[in-house]
Order: sequence, then structure tokens, then C-alpha cells
Amino acid sequence: MFSMKLGIVGATGLVGQRFLKLLARLPASFEELRLFSRSQTSLFFNKKALHTQPLSSEGFKGLDICFFSAGADVSRKWAEEAVKRKAIVIDNSSAFREDPAIPLVVPEINSHLLQYKPQIIANPNCTTIQLVTALAPLQKSFQLKSVRVASLQSISGAGKKALDNLKEESRAILEGRENYEKDDLSAAFNCVPYIGAINDEGFCEEEEKIMTESKKILELPDLKISAFTLRVPTLNSHGLVVWLTFHNPPTSLKDLKEALSKAPLIKIQEEGKPPPHGRQTSGRDSVFVGRIRKDPVEENGWILWIVADNLLKGASLNGLQIAEKLITLKREGVHG
Amino acid sequence: MFSMKLGIVGATGLVGQRFLKLLARLPASFEELRLFSRSQTSLFFNKKALHTQPLSSEGFKGLDICFFSAGADVSRKWAEEAVKRKAIVIDNSSAFREDPAIPLVVPEINSHLLQYKPQIIANPNCTTIQLVTALAPLQKSFQLKSVRVASLQSISGAGKKALDNLKEESRAILEGRENYEKDDLSAAFNCVPYIGAINDEGFCEEEEKIMTESKKILELPDLKISAFTLRVPTLNSHGLVVWLTFHNPPTSLKDLKEALSKAPLIKIQEEGKPPPHGRQTSGRDSVFVGRIRKDPVEENGWILWIVADNLLKGASLNGLQIAEKLITLKREGVHG
Repeated sequence: MFSMKLGIVGATGLVGQRFLKLLARLPASFEELRLFSRSQTSLFFNKKALHTQPLSSEGFKGLDICFFSAGADVSRKWAEEAVKRKAIVIDNSSAFREDPAIPLVVPEINSHLLQYKPQIIANPNCTTIQLVTALAPLQKSFQLKSVRVASLQSISGAGKKALDNLKEESRAILEGRENYEKDDLSAAFNCVPYIGAINDEGFCEEEEKIMTESKKILELPDLKISAFTLRVPTLNSHGLVVWLTFHNPPTSLKDLKEALSKAPLIKIQEEGKPPPHGRQTSGRDSVFVGRIRKDPVEENGWILWIVADNLLKGASLNGLQIAEKLITLKREGVHG
Repeated sequence: MFSMKLGIVGATGLVGQRFLKLLARLPASFEELRLFSRSQTSLFFNKKALHTQPLSSEGFKGLDICFFSAGADVSRKWAEEAVKRKAIVIDNSSAFREDPAIPLVVPEINSHLLQYKPQIIANPNCTTIQLVTALAPLQKSFQLKSVRVASLQSISGAGKKALDNLKEESRAILEGRENYEKDDLSAAFNCVPYIGAINDEGFCEEEEKIMTESKKILELPDLKISAFTLRVPTLNSHGLVVWLTFHNPPTSLKDLKEALSKAPLIKIQEEGKPPPHGRQTSGRDSVFVGRIRKDPVEENGWILWIVADNLLKGASLNGLQIAEKLITLKREGVHG
């Protein structure tokens, strides 16, 4: 088996921990697994305790691949340091996603970009990954004309602290001891209708990410797309309500389902079964699609529901798939 | 002051109780306030305890107006009995909404229908009321071409028992003692992507209601409209993500806001303030509109967020407004 040295920056975070857990799936043994986190602690991999270390330039020395999931600021500061020491960086933050020189990769869609030996590979935004995983096979078969998406995003997407806060605030509400003002924006039993700062066109950061990143990944710079993102009081998994139109629309529901089912990670709602929902998809690899129907608004329009674990396919699993590809290319002598 | 006899069927329900509380606003004194509920209990109005009674045909005798909010089955069985005894019925259930002979009324839009002396007046679906309250002034100014709406509906819309269940299930999850299967459909920390049975076209009951009722209220039988409804883990207030296109679109955001602000119950997000959210709107009369922006998908398209208390303007307050109009007409000798 191929042996390698691998690092995780932000190893104690929700995504970092999922990534660590997934590593057992890689077609490689680990000569070393180096974990970085702000506060030093121990984490388990294959029943072995691993101590985390603080970030330092020298800390990256000798690593083959380093997965970053500690926010854009950390990536902007440290990714170059890792690259200088010959590690390939898979970055889960937004730091490099819009950089035209850095590939934004969802492996089942554009893993060919890894052949160009990038030193940094950007892992897309969680909602974007779920969306394009379902859109890519539809684009291939029917050519997308427009995409309108409303995303209902769980608290785990905002990180561990936000998740703990939500639980505490929810407890407070249930026990009648909440101590905020009615106007306070909190997602405890409440939907917050934006994520991140709002730009001059009225779109918030998360919406911009979805629109920009989807175009880049699908290689459709002129795609008509608009997004509306909300933080909702669910613990994990993001759900997306999507309206689509096509240039060469499917002639039937069967047609559309057949195209969708070609994508490896897609699971389509079975006939007569209830639609997939977040709790059900949490902890599962697949991107679930359901409630597929024609849109009475437009002749060539369709409506669907996409739901997936934002920490898995939406983040760590996609990162792992990128690492898998890199390892395969390394073994074949193409990369590294 | 005008004096009258008024009844409430389903007086102990979430909507019934809100309606009772709102009665103090009516421009009438009450010779009698008769409350009906399945199990007998006492409710307070103006600090006076009123005993509820079971439904009976004779129980409606002498009532001027009777508000029904005990579900479609109760309305189908008892509304005619009330009408036979000369009471005007304001029905909050779905029983008569699609009946072409029965007016479906949002007073600021179509209160003129009350002049035709209907014996039953249907109060629209909660989400529909919020939606059309914002759409009506836009229709007037810019003529709607298409409407796509995703609604995030709170548990209070499913009634008291559902609300209690949600709280109990949420407690169980927070305390780690949940005892359902992962696939179980529950809205506790989970978004359920449909409400009611799904028809052959793939739309659930709640979506059908929104599409059918909006056309009827706006008197736009050919309006292109599609809805996606979800039950979300919020306690109260429904939120709507809406994509619109117009025949004669507004030329600017200011233009659109000006048209919207003509509707009496609309409150528009103020410049520089965060968008309105459910917790904030809960307990308030208004329908709040925010996040208004141009839709990059379509030249004449706009996106907005509508949020309101589904038990108030979405149900009891709209019913009260109908009662107000009826009382005014009665005083003027037009009705009854």
C-alpha cells in the first residue's frame, strides 16, 4: 500500500473531525498523520491517540497533503507556508475559491483539473457542492438555462461553537429562560434569512459563493443563477429548494431521473416513499434528491429538493475524494 | 356602540385563542360571546371567565357572526347549521375556500365581495394570506407575470398538539434521549419538505392551496405560480422566499418599495437594518418584507422575503378584519 504523510489544520473542528474519521477509507497507509489545532489536545485515529500541535511553518515539513479547515484567515496566512514545504493543500475555506488560478474541485465533475499539478486545491462551499453534484448530470443531458435556489442551512455549517450556542439557546427557550430581545437575530427556533454580509446588489456572502462557485465548477460563466440562503434551526444537513429551466429539457420525469442517476453520489427518492430529509441524510455520503416535478410557471421548468450532510459531501467527504484522486495520480506518477 | 352576539368554534385552539384576544379591537360591544370547544373549559375575555360549550345546532341560535377554526371536517359538518340559524360564518378551515360560490377574503384586497351578503366567508390559508398581502400592491402597480415561492412554515401552523410535540421532541434531542428512527419524519431540528398529501403532479396539499387560493384572491386565474412548502422547526411565524417577474416591471428598487408600502399592513425592511425574521414578527400584526433585490436570472425578475405571524395576519387577524368589515356593513344596513 502507498504510504504518505498527511496533515489536518483545524483538526478539532466539525469538518476536521469528520475528515479524520474518513481517512480510514483512503487507499494509503499513513507514515504520519499530523494534526494542527489552536488549543492542544488529543484526537483518536484507528484507536490511537494523536496529539495536536499549533501551526508553524516548520510544522508542514515533509507532509504530502495537508487539509485545511480552520477558516479563510488561517488559510490565507498558512497555506502558502505548507506549499513552500512541498505539501499539496486541500483548502476547505473560501480563501482561494474565486482565484482563477486555483482549481475548485468536486471530483465527480472536474477532477481532471488535478492533472495540472495544482499546489492548492479549493474545496467548494458546502451548499455549492450539494447543488452542483445534482446539477452536473442535468447540465450534461439537458443544458441548464437557469437555476433559482433557496437553501436551508443547518447550524453545523457555522461551526462547533454556533452549534453549541444553538443548543443552549434552544434549551433556554424550552425552559422559558431566554434572555434576548425579540429582535435579536438567533437561529434558535428561528430562520435567519441571510448568511454573511450583504453586498450592493442585495446578495449575502453565502449567496454570492453559491452563484460564483457553481459557475466556476460547472464551467458555465454565463449561467443564469440566483440564490437565497437562510440559516435554519437544524443541527446538520442542508436542504435546497431548486427551480430549474433547461435549453433541451427532459421529455419526462423518467428522463430526468435517468440523467440524475448517472451521478455516482446521487440518491433519488423512490416511488411511493416520502421525500428525503435532513435528519435522515445526516451521516450519509449521498446527495439525496426528491420532490421532482414540473414547474407550472415555465414550460421547460422543473422543481426539485436536494438534501445532504453538509459536513460530509458538503465538506470533508469532498475533500477526501480530492485526496483520493491526488493519491491515485501520485501513484501513477502524474502528480508530486 | 353597536352590540352583537359572536361565536368562536375551536376557541381553545391556537387560532381560536388569538381570535378571542383580538376581539377587544372590534368596534362593537358583545351582548354575548359564545365559545365552542371539544372539551369543556373556561377561557378569559376582558378578565371575565367564559365557559366553553360543545357544538350543537341550537348552540348557534341568535349569533350574528360565528368564527370557525376547528379544522375542515368540523366546518363541513357544522357551518351550514350556523348559517341556517342566521349566523354569518367566517371559516378559517380549507373546507370552502375553493368553492367558487364562497368568497375567499383578505380584506385589504377584496373586501368588496362582502357586499354580496355571503353567509359563509372563507379565511384563506395562512401562507397564502401573507403572500397575497404583499403581491396585491405589486400586481396593481406592475402586473405579476410569475410567482415562485418557497415557504418555511412554523409548527404553530400545525396546531397546539404539534407545537407541544415539537417542544417535547426537541427536549429529547437536546437531552440525548430521542427514541425515533433516523428516517422518521419529525420537524424537531429538521426541515420536513412537504405538508400534506402529494398529488399526481407532485405538489403537496399546502402547495396546492397557495397556488389555487392566490389565483382566486388576486382574481388572476392564469397567474403562473408554483409553490414549495416545508415545515420547519420554528415555533411561530412563516417565512417566504419569493421570486417574481412582472409584465410592467418596476424601474428601480425605490419604485417597488413605494408600491409595496401602499398596502396598509406591509412593513418594509429599513435601509441599513437587518432583514425581518420570524421571532421578531411573532405577535405583530404586520406582514414584513425584506431582502428585496433584482433577480440576476431574469431581466424583469425580483427576489424578496416575506415573514409574518401565521396565527395573526395569517389567520385570526385576517378573520377579525373580515368581522370588522361585516360589522361596518351591518351598521350601514348593507349586510344582515
